[in-house]
Amino acid sequence: MALYVQKFGGTSVGTVERIQAVAAKIKSFRAQGHDIVAVVSAMSGETNRLLGLANGLSDNPSPREIDVLVSTGEQVTIALLTMALQELDCDAKSYTGDQIKILTDSAHTKARIKDIDVKTLQADLHKGRVVVVAGFQGVDEHGNMTTLGRGGSDTSAVAIAAALKADECQIYTDVDGVYTTDPRVVAQARRLNKITFEEMLEMASLGSKVLQIRAVEFAGKYRVPLRVLSSFVEGEGTLITFEGDHKMEQPVISGIAFNRDEAKLTLVGVPDIPGAASRILGPVSAANIEVDMIVQNVADDKTTDFTFTVNRSDYQQVTRVLESVAVDLGAQAVRGNDSIAKVSIVGVGMRSHAGVASRMFDALAAESINILMISTSEIKVSVVIEEKYLELAVRALHTAFDLDSENDIE
Amino acid sequence: MALYVQKFGGTSVGTVERIQAVAAKIKSFRAQGHDIVAVVSAMSGETNRLLGLANGLSDNPSPREIDVLVSTGEQVTIALLTMALQELDCDAKSYTGDQIKILTDSAHTKARIKDIDVKTLQADLHKGRVVVVAGFQGVDEHGNMTTLGRGGSDTSAVAIAAALKADECQIYTDVDGVYTTDPRVVAQARRLNKITFEEMLEMASLGSKVLQIRAVEFAGKYRVPLRVLSSFVEGEGTLITFEGDHKMEQPVISGIAFNRDEAKLTLVGVPDIPGAASRILGPVSAANIEVDMIVQNVADDKTTDFTFTVNRSDYQQVTRVLESVAVDLGAQAVRGNDSIAKVSIVGVGMRSHAGVASRMFDALAAESINILMISTSEIKVSVVIEEKYLELAVRALHTAFDLDSENDIE
Repeated sequence: MALYVQKFGGTSVGTVERIQAVAAKIKSFRAQGHDIVAVVSAMSGETNRLLGLANGLSDNPSPREIDVLVSTGEQVTIALLTMALQELDCDAKSYTGDQIKILTDSAHTKARIKDIDVKTLQADLHKGRVVVVAGFQGVDEHGNMTTLGRGGSDTSAVAIAAALKADECQIYTDVDGVYTTDPRVVAQARRLNKITFEEMLEMASLGSKVLQIRAVEFAGKYRVPLRVLSSFVEGEGTLITFEGDHKMEQPVISGIAFNRDEAKLTLVGVPDIPGAASRILGPVSAANIEVDMIVQNVADDKTTDFTFTVNRSDYQQVTRVLESVAVDLGAQAVRGNDSIAKVSIVGVGMRSHAGVASRMFDALAAESINILMISTSEIKVSVVIEEKYLELAVRALHTAFDLDSENDIE
Repeated sequence: MALYVQKFGGTSVGTVERIQAVAAKIKSFRAQGHDIVAVVSAMSGETNRLLGLANGLSDNPSPREIDVLVSTGEQVTIALLTMALQELDCDAKSYTGDQIKILTDSAHTKARIKDIDVKTLQADLHKGRVVVVAGFQGVDEHGNMTTLGRGGSDTSAVAIAAALKADECQIYTDVDGVYTTDPRVVAQARRLNKITFEEMLEMASLGSKVLQIRAVEFAGKYRVPLRVLSSFVEGEGTLITFEGDHKMEQPVISGIAFNRDEAKLTLVGVPDIPGAASRILGPVSAANIEVDMIVQNVADDKTTDFTFTVNRSDYQQVTRVLESVAVDLGAQAVRGNDSIAKVSIVGVGMRSHAGVASRMFDALAAESINILMISTSEIKVSVVIEEKYLELAVRALHTAFDLDSENDIE
């Protein structure tokens, strides 16, 4: 007898048949005596269909009205899933974010959850009902509908699990867990039974699309046990744990993340004066461009080269910004490369193992892959390489860190 | 400077382009200094699409969840129309039925409005905003979403107009007003500039699809001036007035309504005993079948024939009910006819003009049309005829009552 918050994403509820399958899955948990709160996304494609209508009306539609519009997507799903549950004689009731008072700030289209009133949820659970809640949405203190931004349903589920002190928050998706790396790139990639919260946070921020980083952060803050499972395949999935919770013996690294959507810019020959970095990044930030890795090389005693990476879609815009900065700062040139990729090894084990970075560089050197940039944190090492070497690099690292083996690496 | 509540139906907001046209129309009223509350339906086809999803899940979906599901249709439209208005620099804000507290009873899918809190609406109007409200929907005292049933957006608009004491409630639709009869049947049919509330009520109940009868009743109860206009063609439309409001000289009849969806059943040789009528209609009513016209003929001194009409879709079911009633009552036989139609002449003028009914019967006799049943009220005479004569009858009556003429018949 446990309380589970189960989140089903857009592909898991994409058709009437899939909604029926989700209902059957929930009913099987009920049959085992568990209490269930189901948090659902819009049916796949629906949010984009609605945004398409809005874009037909305005290049810059009001964020308040966007939220009114797109929150209908989840509202449709809660009604349909509740009907499907009732059809299986499983008592159920639907709620919008407004109806169970998922209180957020007023930052439309990217609101943050401030509070959840669990009284209604608890009363229904007490009556033996499955509670079906619209993910992604909330309400501000003035009664305006808000949404949490892309992937916000994961965050809704974790927040509800935290508020209800649920035993586990289960994220059902179209993959059956978190893998050592993308199985489409490395055939030997294997599902992890467990991953620490910090590793998951790095994996999410480094390009693994399994979980939204905000949801992982939220789970960490409230220590909500989080599990990623497949809606379509039976299995244990991957449990995101807190470091103290499981055995101290760690593999050196748990996974390899990568991201193709990167571009790199270098301002060459920047006068080495105080405040140069902020004069470079200030205008970039003012243009709403997010910077990822930053490296500064001292070229000689008077000038430095300043290099950073951005999302590839920002490449043209940031180049224009930098050209104007270069004139302003008296830098020599702007150089760029928009066919790079980032590869990262992640693992809490590297804290206690020396030489992880050099083992990584050796593995890449053995394949003649040139490293363009390096960035490290306590539990990850990221390198930027030319995009054409990406798959080769990921496979080489997967082997070099013994992730191909059949051993249980939980 | 007036306050108008303007209701736009599903075809009026059926595409992004039509929503833009509605926004332009509203803006032109704003430019004349009028305050506008816009009440909108779901985009045409959307409600049926949603119900189709529900029917894929259950033969008998929960009414509460149906309301959660279908109320998304209007919610999409309010967001889109508000965006379209803002794009024209017309300040606007959207509200669901819940957000402006359109309080209803808890009869899901056919709720009735109990109260509307106008404070929010008035505050926005005071700020010079167009208020865009989702029609068809409300909220019960427990916070559950409710809907008002088919055509409920008309009722929403009239109720909001009543609550705000609006100068006029304007129903924009795909016809340009109320006609003397259906122009598809009588080419000479003409738009009425005015029609009395009572005539409109009869026309609506007799099969004219222009306005929902509940909305007309609501308008009558609160004396809301109601106007029917086209969303697509400029014009004055038809104003529904209250009898005292306009000149006493009335045309004898204002319009001819008709309805094809009729079937007629006769229980022959019913013993003429007290309570026979209730023993016949009780089981019919218990089967949720609505009876329209009822006629009882005394055949001889011991038995009567009992005839009534129902909606044609109920014909098979009511026949089965009557066969069992016939046995119970000792009646001789059940006879039925499901290819009949009802034609009605409507006009407050007939109160003061004798011989209206006989003029009607003469006109039909002149075309050799046999009258199967007759029913009268103070301002209408209805006859049941064989369906094949329907168009001929309507044209003959349109001419007999001088409705073909070009005279202004307001």
